[in-house]
Amino acid sequence: MRSDAVTPRATPTLKSAYPQLVPLSTRWSDNDAYGHLNNVIYYSLFDTAVNRHLLDHGVLDIANSPVVGLVIETRCTYFASLAYPDAIEVGLKVVRLGNSSVTYEVAIFRADQDRAAAVGAFTHVYVDRVSNRPARIPEPVRVLLSTLVAGPAA
Amino acid sequence: MRSDAVTPRATPTLKSAYPQLVPLSTRWSDNDAYGHLNNVIYYSLFDTAVNRHLLDHGVLDIANSPVVGLVIETRCTYFASLAYPDAIEVGLKVVRLGNSSVTYEVAIFRADQDRAAAVGAFTHVYVDRVSNRPARIPEPVRVLLSTLVAGPAA
Amino acid sequence: MRSDAVTPRATPTLKSAYPQLVPLSTRWSDNDAYGHLNNVIYYSLFDTAVNRHLLDHGVLDIANSPVVGLVIETRCTYFASLAYPDAIEVGLKVVRLGNSSVTYEVAIFRADQDRAAAVGAFTHVYVDRVSNRPARIPEPVRVLLSTLVAGPAA
Amino acid sequence: MRSDAVTPRATPTLKSAYPQLVPLSTRWSDNDAYGHLNNVIYYSLFDTAVNRHLLDHGVLDIANSPVVGLVIETRCTYFASLAYPDAIEVGLKVVRLGNSSVTYEVAIFRADQDRAAAVGAFTHVYVDRVSNRPARIPEPVRVLLSTLVAGPAA
Repeated sequence: MRSDAVTPRATPTLKSAYPQLVPLSTRWSDNDAYGHLNNVIYYSLFDTAVNRHLLDHGVLDIANSPVVGLVIETRCTYFASLAYPDAIEVGLKVVRLGNSSVTYEVAIFRADQDRAAAVGAFTHVYVDRVSNRPARIPEPVRVLLSTLVAGPAA
Repeated sequence: MRSDAVTPRATPTLKSAYPQLVPLSTRWSDNDAYGHLNNVIYYSLFDTAVNRHLLDHGVLDIANSPVVGLVIETRCTYFASLAYPDAIEVGLKVVRLGNSSVTYEVAIFRADQDRAAAVGAFTHVYVDRVSNRPARIPEPVRVLLSTLVAGPAA
Repeated sequence: MRSDAVTPRATPTLKSAYPQLVPLSTRWSDNDAYGHLNNVIYYSLFDTAVNRHLLDHGVLDIANSPVVGLVIETRCTYFASLAYPDAIEVGLKVVRLGNSSVTYEVAIFRADQDRAAAVGAFTHVYVDRVSNRPARIPEPVRVLLSTLVAGPAA
Repeated sequence: MRSDAVTPRATPTLKSAYPQLVPLSTRWSDNDAYGHLNNVIYYSLFDTAVNRHLLDHGVLDIANSPVVGLVIETRCTYFASLAYPDAIEVGLKVVRLGNSSVTYEVAIFRADQDRAAAVGAFTHVYVDRVSNRPARIPEPVRVLLSTLVAGPAA
């Protein structure tokens, strides 16, 4: 939903700005009473894409990893409406890689459009699964995340 | 999930900071693979509470209102874990009331705790339902929102 | 949604048919593109109510119980539409209590109506959390479930 | 979750039993506190697949069709666990095609497995969008559904 009424804190980005694009499908139940993807669903697409990138590269084991990423901050700015049955691509980029936390810039694209429908941020802090205390990002995760820090793929 | 690893952009607030508290229940399916309320659910509680306040006061008719609020920006900072079957209260406060948009500060509390588990922001821009263009916030809505601008209830 | 076009396999029941009623709230995102509670949400209300009854009576510890109930069969017949922000009550009754499985009759009521909007069934088989093999229903659970086998509360 | 403890009312079918398979993705938030796809999600996959088949073939316009399908009965029997990030395929078959209602057999497969993880049924009754009264299934819909009545594709 584009609006001149407010000063957006983000602007719609292009797919080329993201080193990684994760394809996802929408669901009938994603549409709300106004017939568009409910704003909440975008966040579900964000954490699905982030975790899938980690899982696809073998650096996260949901049931067993001793150190896991917990979400401590997210945000999203919405530019255009989406609706089931739109096919989606989620853009991933790492904008801050600390000792125990990582912040991704995330963007939601309709698969057939180059301009983002929404742009957000997603911060994981890594914690020990048992003690719940911050822990250093595991080396295999860090190596993978480093590849998302750079600019877009050639 | 409290962490010293990052500088949070918000701090946990108290219930007394909010003129309105909306009680909501959690669901079994809200818990994720780590056994806590999934981060996405907080946003569902946000827009449920905001819209319910409007509905309870008779200033929103989901099916018929000619001018409706569309979400253009949201964010959330997480301080502590919650889990089904926790009972929840959502704090509502208006921090910016413009001509066609309103930003709420929203907070998620466990019903039996005074300190917020999460604090966020939620911005509605009002648009004409047919043209999708920004519209002036309807007067009955504005009157209601004005009561949330002030500080906490006495 | 009542229809004469099909022979329903269930008929709308009354609240008095259920020994236990669990109050739950609806969410903005529950409404689908047709403006009514999405059919999927009813199942979320079912397992929320069943598990909450177990949790409220201290016979289920989601993180630690060695024997847990897994869902092996559910069904629902829909009689009338509901919509956020309706307040809900879920009726619970045990219709079959076996060695390792239990089948509940479940019903969704609008809080202010006595006639069910939907009636369904929900079957848990109890399994060992580690081996995933069927296990005898733990005695404290069985005692609690027995109280739901009888007719409605006086 | 396979169990000998109860007599299942359905048995796991094979992909070849379905004239249509719809590929869908899972989401992080689909996993519940036991680390598996929550039972509710299967129903979301059912109605996503059914409606997408109608949309892909141009016989449903969510916002404008004068006659729409409302869900009046669903059920599901669960045979095996699934978990995000599994890729899914939903099998669709029409088992009853009436004047104003249609019942699909639906099945959930892991994309890389041939045996169903769950088998269910899904009944739509077609109603006039305004009056909410049963209506004859529109001819283009009926023609499409007829192609799902037959056995599997050659």
